[in-house]
Amino acid sequence: MKESAVKKIAVLTSGGDAPGMNAALRAVVRTANYYDIECYGVREGYNGLINGDFLKMGPRSVKNIINQGGTILKSARSMEFKTKEGRQKAYDHCVRLGIDGLVCIGGDGTFTGAKIFNEEFGIRVIGIPGTIDNDIFGTDNTIGYDTALNTAMDAIDKIRDTATSHNRVFFVEVMGRDAGFIALNSGLATGALDILIPERKDSIDELFTNFRNAEKTGKASSIVVVAEGEKLANVYELAEKTKKDFPDYDIRVAILGHMQRGGSPSCADRVLASRLGYGAVTGLMEGKTNVMAGMRSNDLVYTPIEEAIKKHNEINKDLLLISKILAI
Amino acid sequence: MKESAVKKIAVLTSGGDAPGMNAALRAVVRTANYYDIECYGVREGYNGLINGDFLKMGPRSVKNIINQGGTILKSARSMEFKTKEGRQKAYDHCVRLGIDGLVCIGGDGTFTGAKIFNEEFGIRVIGIPGTIDNDIFGTDNTIGYDTALNTAMDAIDKIRDTATSHNRVFFVEVMGRDAGFIALNSGLATGALDILIPERKDSIDELFTNFRNAEKTGKASSIVVVAEGEKLANVYELAEKTKKDFPDYDIRVAILGHMQRGGSPSCADRVLASRLGYGAVTGLMEGKTNVMAGMRSNDLVYTPIEEAIKKHNEINKDLLLISKILAI
Amino acid sequence: MKESAVKKIAVLTSGGDAPGMNAALRAVVRTANYYDIECYGVREGYNGLINGDFLKMGPRSVKNIINQGGTILKSARSMEFKTKEGRQKAYDHCVRLGIDGLVCIGGDGTFTGAKIFNEEFGIRVIGIPGTIDNDIFGTDNTIGYDTALNTAMDAIDKIRDTATSHNRVFFVEVMGRDAGFIALNSGLATGALDILIPERKDSIDELFTNFRNAEKTGKASSIVVVAEGEKLANVYELAEKTKKDFPDYDIRVAILGHMQRGGSPSCADRVLASRLGYGAVTGLMEGKTNVMAGMRSNDLVYTPIEEAIKKHNEINKDLLLISKILAI
Amino acid sequence: MKESAVKKIAVLTSGGDAPGMNAALRAVVRTANYYDIECYGVREGYNGLINGDFLKMGPRSVKNIINQGGTILKSARSMEFKTKEGRQKAYDHCVRLGIDGLVCIGGDGTFTGAKIFNEEFGIRVIGIPGTIDNDIFGTDNTIGYDTALNTAMDAIDKIRDTATSHNRVFFVEVMGRDAGFIALNSGLATGALDILIPERKDSIDELFTNFRNAEKTGKASSIVVVAEGEKLANVYELAEKTKKDFPDYDIRVAILGHMQRGGSPSCADRVLASRLGYGAVTGLMEGKTNVMAGMRSNDLVYTPIEEAIKKHNEINKDLLLISKILAI
Repeated sequence: MKESAVKKIAVLTSGGDAPGMNAALRAVVRTANYYDIECYGVREGYNGLINGDFLKMGPRSVKNIINQGGTILKSARSMEFKTKEGRQKAYDHCVRLGIDGLVCIGGDGTFTGAKIFNEEFGIRVIGIPGTIDNDIFGTDNTIGYDTALNTAMDAIDKIRDTATSHNRVFFVEVMGRDAGFIALNSGLATGALDILIPERKDSIDELFTNFRNAEKTGKASSIVVVAEGEKLANVYELAEKTKKDFPDYDIRVAILGHMQRGGSPSCADRVLASRLGYGAVTGLMEGKTNVMAGMRSNDLVYTPIEEAIKKHNEINKDLLLISKILAI
Repeated sequence: MKESAVKKIAVLTSGGDAPGMNAALRAVVRTANYYDIECYGVREGYNGLINGDFLKMGPRSVKNIINQGGTILKSARSMEFKTKEGRQKAYDHCVRLGIDGLVCIGGDGTFTGAKIFNEEFGIRVIGIPGTIDNDIFGTDNTIGYDTALNTAMDAIDKIRDTATSHNRVFFVEVMGRDAGFIALNSGLATGALDILIPERKDSIDELFTNFRNAEKTGKASSIVVVAEGEKLANVYELAEKTKKDFPDYDIRVAILGHMQRGGSPSCADRVLASRLGYGAVTGLMEGKTNVMAGMRSNDLVYTPIEEAIKKHNEINKDLLLISKILAI
Repeated sequence: MKESAVKKIAVLTSGGDAPGMNAALRAVVRTANYYDIECYGVREGYNGLINGDFLKMGPRSVKNIINQGGTILKSARSMEFKTKEGRQKAYDHCVRLGIDGLVCIGGDGTFTGAKIFNEEFGIRVIGIPGTIDNDIFGTDNTIGYDTALNTAMDAIDKIRDTATSHNRVFFVEVMGRDAGFIALNSGLATGALDILIPERKDSIDELFTNFRNAEKTGKASSIVVVAEGEKLANVYELAEKTKKDFPDYDIRVAILGHMQRGGSPSCADRVLASRLGYGAVTGLMEGKTNVMAGMRSNDLVYTPIEEAIKKHNEINKDLLLISKILAI
Repeated sequence: MKESAVKKIAVLTSGGDAPGMNAALRAVVRTANYYDIECYGVREGYNGLINGDFLKMGPRSVKNIINQGGTILKSARSMEFKTKEGRQKAYDHCVRLGIDGLVCIGGDGTFTGAKIFNEEFGIRVIGIPGTIDNDIFGTDNTIGYDTALNTAMDAIDKIRDTATSHNRVFFVEVMGRDAGFIALNSGLATGALDILIPERKDSIDELFTNFRNAEKTGKASSIVVVAEGEKLANVYELAEKTKKDFPDYDIRVAILGHMQRGGSPSCADRVLASRLGYGAVTGLMEGKTNVMAGMRSNDLVYTPIEEAIKKHNEINKDLLLISKILAI
């Protein structure tokens, strides 16, 4: 390998935490160590960068974390980093420590910050997509998405047990403020009668039609999965509206909430995180900057951060049709 | 064994469903079969008894259900069974089919119904405690309680991951309208800072003192577990009040909800259900009636239904102290 | 949609079972129903085809199976289908029932049978890759692979607990007679010191070097993951050889075995199975034959069966390097 | 509370590790802290006592371990502690540090060592039953037993999926060298056709009779659960013998092995461990010695160590009968 473009790097986790962030961090630190790159962990996202909260990390600093949810570096949303002054402070700390490359693990907001930081100060940055929402372009899956899907699915499987025993209708809210990936996939996987997501213009009439069709086939209980960001109505409103038209229904609401962000990462997430952590460090070494490391069809790919933010993984149209066909 | 006191029995599940009800049902059906007792399943609790919704059951009717949550007989709360007319209809169906013994799987309400039915019509009844709330006297644990504890604990473990990563305070509501068993045990098992239960007179000042003490020890994130039936305030109100006194806290609320009722039963619940199902049938055969089958310290015991309803498993005082000592 | 190329199809599961086969079956049956195609299930793989063991299936035949491991149609390896006579019998049954399309869920062997059957008798066939081994070309993942990875990972996570507590070395055998995908990915996900797979020429010296390097870094316990089909030696022999060179090591062996084939499918496997089941039926309707439905980078793709069998998903070279770098 | 009988205590984990040992350790350390007792952790069981490997522990030393399998103090079997010289060294270290009480978490062997140590040197000792085998008298359950049961049950549930899909017979070995508790309870919970345990004199003829009876009822696949210490034959021999008499059976063997010792403890185990850790420290404070803390029917009880070792929790005869009745 020719000479590395970076000698000393820092790594941070930012935005909403996701299972597998620790596995990505471990991969960054150990890959850096393997290639004799010094590596610092930054605590609490961009806030730590601004406050100079750096931590020298070696291979043993990240032992026994590959299987842990959350992020040992902690995460935060930083208002100050959105200001020029904040970023200047952050840059000064980097200069002081001699840091010439920065690995940013997070989502949309994290990447926007990284991009601006790079454009203003020239420091090499590379992104790793870590968010349960899967709303980042340039990678088949984001880190944490697969684990969140399994968590949501397991919870809905349990809810189905009680729904079936009591002939109930459940409206289940899953995470996803702007993206319906979790709703669509967990709903498909649990045989939801209907799935409401922000990417599609849903109508209450269509939902009611589905209820009526289900009645005809003798289905006595139903699950409707609703993304947090659904525009038609929230789960409580949906339950209320449904009760008006179907007064005999025994309707309940469940909000899965923050448990979807935690838990030991799935195998797919640990492997993805390990590969992207490796890819981020080797990418920086090869001179890449302002890109995001991602996996497409088992291959490591780099996408300009700008593209990763602006473009979107689109909800597969087929999936909407399939979920409808299969939830008979 | 001398002659059985019953020849033809029926079994029903009633009230809120609980993991392990199917395992209990399987045990009832197969034990009856083993001793040449005819066995009928009744659908949808006492409603099925009233409507004559009986199902002849043999050993193969209950195959592959020991590991399934919910109840294949379905459950319901019956208003009609609270009336003399309703119970008369139910009795008439029993007479018509020649049923001389009834196994009732459920909780408090279920047992009250059974007791009255026995006292009015003389038909032998025996109860099996199936409820996640553990609020039945005469058994160390009720069926479903252990599974619900593990479900709640797993969810709170996940929530802790994200709480820790973001230095947050979470108020987590678990099931238990009248009983704090789930809250107390799942809270103890997850190192909750505080646990609020209906059995104890809680005060907001004590909670705030705990927050302040935690700050002193450097604890940056906390979980407070709150039973559904807590009298001081519900989780949203608690969050709001806390926010006023601790404006810097990043506070979130999670309501675990109905997922606590579902899921494949734990080993302890499957074994308990199997033993109680067996105990219920052999109890009826030996001429017992108006009692509940329970397990105490691994021994099968029978408790008069009246006692099972009136007395209560008391929250262990030690447990409250222990949870306080350990959540440093 | 223009007229369908098929009117009546049959579906079977064959070869080693894999979690998600039931989800695929459900998707085939319900998609067929949606498009007014008649659908028959064939029991016990090609044996059922030969013996005429067909079962008319409608939407309710596949209810509550999306979350179940195994296959309700059962699976078997058929010797008779390898003979011309056997296949002739199978074809006669298809003719008798008017079946003009066949969906075959399984692996290599299953597809070889399907291909020959198509070439001999002209009946349309389409394959769905269902095997935990992931050794099929034309799809990023096979159905069951993701679930098996998580099962293996969970077991190894548990083994690590006891390995660490007792400073032990564990040799863990995972499934994979010809392919090291499970070993490589579960080993990477659990921080295995070394991973031995049939695709690579391993040497005992390299393994011993890894042990010695681990000693230097103070690692007191280790996991070595070995694929079932590893050519260097099996786990018992590896343990014995290691004991000779490292007499102080407390060495244990664990063979994960058949539990890797079972269990409720992961969300990824349920979604993959649902999409491929849909894709298989619509593929047949569009006139496709002698192809396999697969997913690459979230897109449905069809690959000639011949190619799916002959080509192989290659073990990613990067992954071998990454596992080495990260297991410091 | 009157003055404590101890001022400075040490705690160790010894023998085979069990899930919940960390939770017990946490409870010991935090209870001691609460009552102003100094507390030392001893590494690697009695070896650490002999080698003076002590670690001062405070409340933060045990944070985030309640949910972790294994033991952070590590465990070992000590040959040297079986000698007078070894114990003298251990005592000298205790004297040097001023330790006047010792909490020993482990099983039979651990307790025997503690008892002799107490009798020889007068230092107060108290035992906490931590072993997955449940073979300790004086407590309904030992720490780790409940978790091991669920681990074994989950694995057998998975094996059943593939057994059913292929009409196979599986012989599954679970842990338990001298005790059949895991086998009996996990077998009952998974509907095993037969369960072979060391406490009962099993015969191959009875097993074969069960196979023949199962055939008559149309059962096409079966699980036989065998305790590690079964005297009739090991799983491989059983498989071989069965194959001779039932040549048509497709028979497989699975050995669950060490995964049964690991994993995050169940809620019941965390609560049990917390209560016993508390009970051990308060027991020492009250002047108790040479006893074991246990739970019977939700009450804390102390049993003389001698009794805990000599007596045995007997396998419940009912359970053998019930497992036979229910596995139709």
